[in-house]
Amino acid sequence: MQRATNTRISKRNGTSFLHVEEPFRFFKGGVIPRLDIAFETWGELDAERSNASLVMTGLSPNAHAASSEDNPEDGWWEPMMGPGKPIDTRHNFVVCVNSLGSCKGSTGPASINPETSKEYRLSFPDLTIQDIAAAGKLVLDALGIEQLRCLIGPSMGGMSGLALMQQQPDIARHFLAISTAARAEPFAIAIRSLQREMIVRDPRWQDGGYTDDDWPETGMRLARKLGMISYRSGTEWRERFGRQAQKRYNERLFGMHFAIESYLENAARKFIRNFDPCSYLYLSQAMDLYDFAEGYPDLTAAFAPLKLKSAKIIGVDTDVLWPPHQQREICRGLTAHGVDCDPQLLPSVQGHDAFLVDYDRFCPAVAEYFEQIS
Amino acid sequence: MQRATNTRISKRNGTSFLHVEEPFRFFKGGVIPRLDIAFETWGELDAERSNASLVMTGLSPNAHAASSEDNPEDGWWEPMMGPGKPIDTRHNFVVCVNSLGSCKGSTGPASINPETSKEYRLSFPDLTIQDIAAAGKLVLDALGIEQLRCLIGPSMGGMSGLALMQQQPDIARHFLAISTAARAEPFAIAIRSLQREMIVRDPRWQDGGYTDDDWPETGMRLARKLGMISYRSGTEWRERFGRQAQKRYNERLFGMHFAIESYLENAARKFIRNFDPCSYLYLSQAMDLYDFAEGYPDLTAAFAPLKLKSAKIIGVDTDVLWPPHQQREICRGLTAHGVDCDPQLLPSVQGHDAFLVDYDRFCPAVAEYFEQIS
Repeated sequence: MQRATNTRISKRNGTSFLHVEEPFRFFKGGVIPRLDIAFETWGELDAERSNASLVMTGLSPNAHAASSEDNPEDGWWEPMMGPGKPIDTRHNFVVCVNSLGSCKGSTGPASINPETSKEYRLSFPDLTIQDIAAAGKLVLDALGIEQLRCLIGPSMGGMSGLALMQQQPDIARHFLAISTAARAEPFAIAIRSLQREMIVRDPRWQDGGYTDDDWPETGMRLARKLGMISYRSGTEWRERFGRQAQKRYNERLFGMHFAIESYLENAARKFIRNFDPCSYLYLSQAMDLYDFAEGYPDLTAAFAPLKLKSAKIIGVDTDVLWPPHQQREICRGLTAHGVDCDPQLLPSVQGHDAFLVDYDRFCPAVAEYFEQIS
Repeated sequence: MQRATNTRISKRNGTSFLHVEEPFRFFKGGVIPRLDIAFETWGELDAERSNASLVMTGLSPNAHAASSEDNPEDGWWEPMMGPGKPIDTRHNFVVCVNSLGSCKGSTGPASINPETSKEYRLSFPDLTIQDIAAAGKLVLDALGIEQLRCLIGPSMGGMSGLALMQQQPDIARHFLAISTAARAEPFAIAIRSLQREMIVRDPRWQDGGYTDDDWPETGMRLARKLGMISYRSGTEWRERFGRQAQKRYNERLFGMHFAIESYLENAARKFIRNFDPCSYLYLSQAMDLYDFAEGYPDLTAAFAPLKLKSAKIIGVDTDVLWPPHQQREICRGLTAHGVDCDPQLLPSVQGHDAFLVDYDRFCPAVAEYFEQIS
């Protein structure tokens, strides 16, 4: 486990930055001379430093999970965190960390390499979920938090949480995993691999040499649309869009007859210039490569070292990317080592994205667990 | 219903061609001066012309569904059709038609426009499933078949079959629909729309101006990979590939770590140059636009005119593209109008492609129906 001694924290518009002025070594080799990790906090750390929780995020979110005095804009998990909300910041000190490798404040392929004064891009070391976990841990160290009340991991964040517990088995007393998995399976790999291929085969990718004026928009557009297809469900779309037509038909594109096509296009447009293509590739690949069972005879055995008091594993029936059987698999591993749990599988039609949109189902489930562990 | 008077039939390497030397009018407008329809036949038409069945195909197959004396090469449905097989050509005269719009012998966007001596490409009229049905009917007319024993439609072919029955309600006594649907739903539309966008956004598409030396390989590669993702299932891939690694990692592509990625790449390579991109766009769009309920108050009502004696609707549990509830929907419509049927949902893990690969399940189901109706 890496420790850092030469660190300082700055703050800007509600986001804090841990500046680590010493080399960071990557799990698979490679090193960068320094790094920044963006994070936000809500609530107050109690005197015993025992009421802290850490949110590790999915692929695309930044650290602004919820509004705060310094940044009143809604966060990406606004209904879930705040005073009186399921993760109640009146009693909990909550930290949300932007993943290492992202482009939302933390160091990643889109950051300037201080040794060359140019963006890292493909010279950024190979990134793993283990590196994301280790970088998150540096923030906890800097805040003086030795043990978390709850480690919270939705989607990729659940993998990062599992990796963090593997690195330091007593890091958390409780674990809340949401629509996540202990390792990537071939269906999810196929989707993500194809998304990456869409980006790198865009001529404007230019082997990572794209510029603001010459940006792989097509690759990012296609990748985001495939993302949306994998994040939602046919059931939701049947109810929501059906065969609703529209007047935006674009003959050149052989498409845009139907409302569903506009929906995907709008989702893509919001994303194209708002996420760095190279960051996307690194984070996406890190998910495929992650396997919690690595180094163990099987997945269940890999849960043996963990020192949790409890865990709650929530999944969604219609999630094809992080499907229910992968929630069950985590529960089996935990239960085999004394942390009894059954997955709570919510009957949402919104697939993997349900934790970001189906708050009617997710808020009560999370609130119940936080009441239990607080 | 279009009739053609100026027709002749030629034959080459086991494939017959109906040459229609008069204009063909398209359902949504547009006309071409002449057309060819490729087809194959197996078995003998009986004296009463009462033992004929017609296979209408999915998007990509040609008319060579099974081997024959003239062409002993295996067909795309080899285990299903032939002497002693489920569709037994000792007692049945079977016709398989290559869809209008395809590039496998029938006239389509890749064919030469006799008026310009150039390929039609985007000047080909808008294609609908209704046009594919009408062109298939011209072959039956030319063969002197007034009524089919069985109309057989897997995948897109089921839509073509429904359209044909809408055009001529007594065209078939029996209907065998396999993994099909009466109309496109938004999930399938999303997948196909994205596939089309992958092709038209490939710079080599050149608004339909691609050449053999400058071919939209990337678009076709991506579209085929997404196709495979939608045709199979995560369950199959988990059992078949798991996280099996390989040594073909391609750093430039951020991929090819895993066996599943090679599988997709191999499937794509077989397809890229073997299907015309423009044909693909036309056929894909025709599926999205098709709605059997069009012109009726609801889908069930649209089944009223049909004059079937029986029907069998087979689907697959894991098919996400033509899902089980769409098989049920067809059965509800048929049952409401006196053709009692329940869908037979096969527990295959091979998704939409099961009818092309899971013969252990599909052959007995088809054989049983053919025994019943013969």
